[in-house]
Amino acid sequence: MTTANPKDKIIIGIDPGTNVMGYGILGVRDKQPYLIALGVIRLSKLEDHYLRLRRIYDRVLALVEQYLPDEMAIEAPFFGKNVQSMLKLGRAQGVAMAAALAREVPITEYEPRKIKQAITGNGAASKEQVRELLRRILNIDDKVFKDLELDATDALAAALCHHYEQSRPLPSAGKSSWKSFIAANPNRVVKN
Amino acid sequence: MTTANPKDKIIIGIDPGTNVMGYGILGVRDKQPYLIALGVIRLSKLEDHYLRLRRIYDRVLALVEQYLPDEMAIEAPFFGKNVQSMLKLGRAQGVAMAAALAREVPITEYEPRKIKQAITGNGAASKEQVRELLRRILNIDDKVFKDLELDATDALAAALCHHYEQSRPLPSAGKSSWKSFIAANPNRVVKN
Repeated sequence: MTTANPKDKIIIGIDPGTNVMGYGILGVRDKQPYLIALGVIRLSKLEDHYLRLRRIYDRVLALVEQYLPDEMAIEAPFFGKNVQSMLKLGRAQGVAMAAALAREVPITEYEPRKIKQAITGNGAASKEQVRELLRRILNIDDKVFKDLELDATDALAAALCHHYEQSRPLPSAGKSSWKSFIAANPNRVVKN
Repeated sequence: MTTANPKDKIIIGIDPGTNVMGYGILGVRDKQPYLIALGVIRLSKLEDHYLRLRRIYDRVLALVEQYLPDEMAIEAPFFGKNVQSMLKLGRAQGVAMAAALAREVPITEYEPRKIKQAITGNGAASKEQVRELLRRILNIDDKVFKDLELDATDALAAALCHHYEQSRPLPSAGKSSWKSFIAANPNRVVKN
């Protein structure tokens, strides 16, 4: 892992969950991304729901204060199994976001599929494939990943995806909207 | 509205929403609840989702720092229309909770039905009925409610419900769980 220079851009990636929350700190120097830190916040031992939320808030705030990120990238699935799990996930995301917002760190969220696409070129890639690509792209020693949950690499992937999005926006990786579709495909617009 | 004494217990009630968030500050002196403040945080003019979350966090934190509540009561529906609305609601709840957790204020959540039951004796009461009962119980001048969204009285109702829960726990208003049910109904336990 590399030490950040004051001029480097710092991106914190977060993969929020109610059992394990992953984080990855990415530095960017001369357009080159490098790993600063990654890890997980384990929550499953805390039985109380509010203690978990409190832990997330405290730890994310501590990371923000330690690494002073310029931006936060968050992995945010748009669909879940049921309303109960989505409410819990929303709360976990909310407290993590609050920690960033409290320190004026702008947030961008990405769908898991989009992150996988940006890192591996395949939106349906496995978490292991994402980890392997991250290892190669960021030249990370295997030992770093030892005993570390995949949530940590998922979070780092969100940060790297955000870096790609900002440094070389590709049409395929751009935010999909009718507006951008129409801009890219003017001949597909039916005029009455 | 009454000014709080340092010895009074202060409860902040929150009714989180993604368009309007209601809040009510309740004081308790010699077991008697009284109104300190109530209002709403309007969010619908903010188009950006993160700006809304930021506004909720900032305003709830400001309320916590201004009124120094001992506890937070939050109205929390357990079911919603769909996963999308529940994720948004969860985030709004999460940032409001983070503001309380950041200042070590313990949180208790109550289902809307339970709050209505505690205030009016009818879990299916309308918001207008809840407001009218609050007006009578807390001896509030009609002018206070003028031009104020019902979210504000919903939030105040959550705070009053929490006060009732703590000062005279009723079996019907108690937290329902198998443990408490079994404790209250030992003869209903089938032993093999």
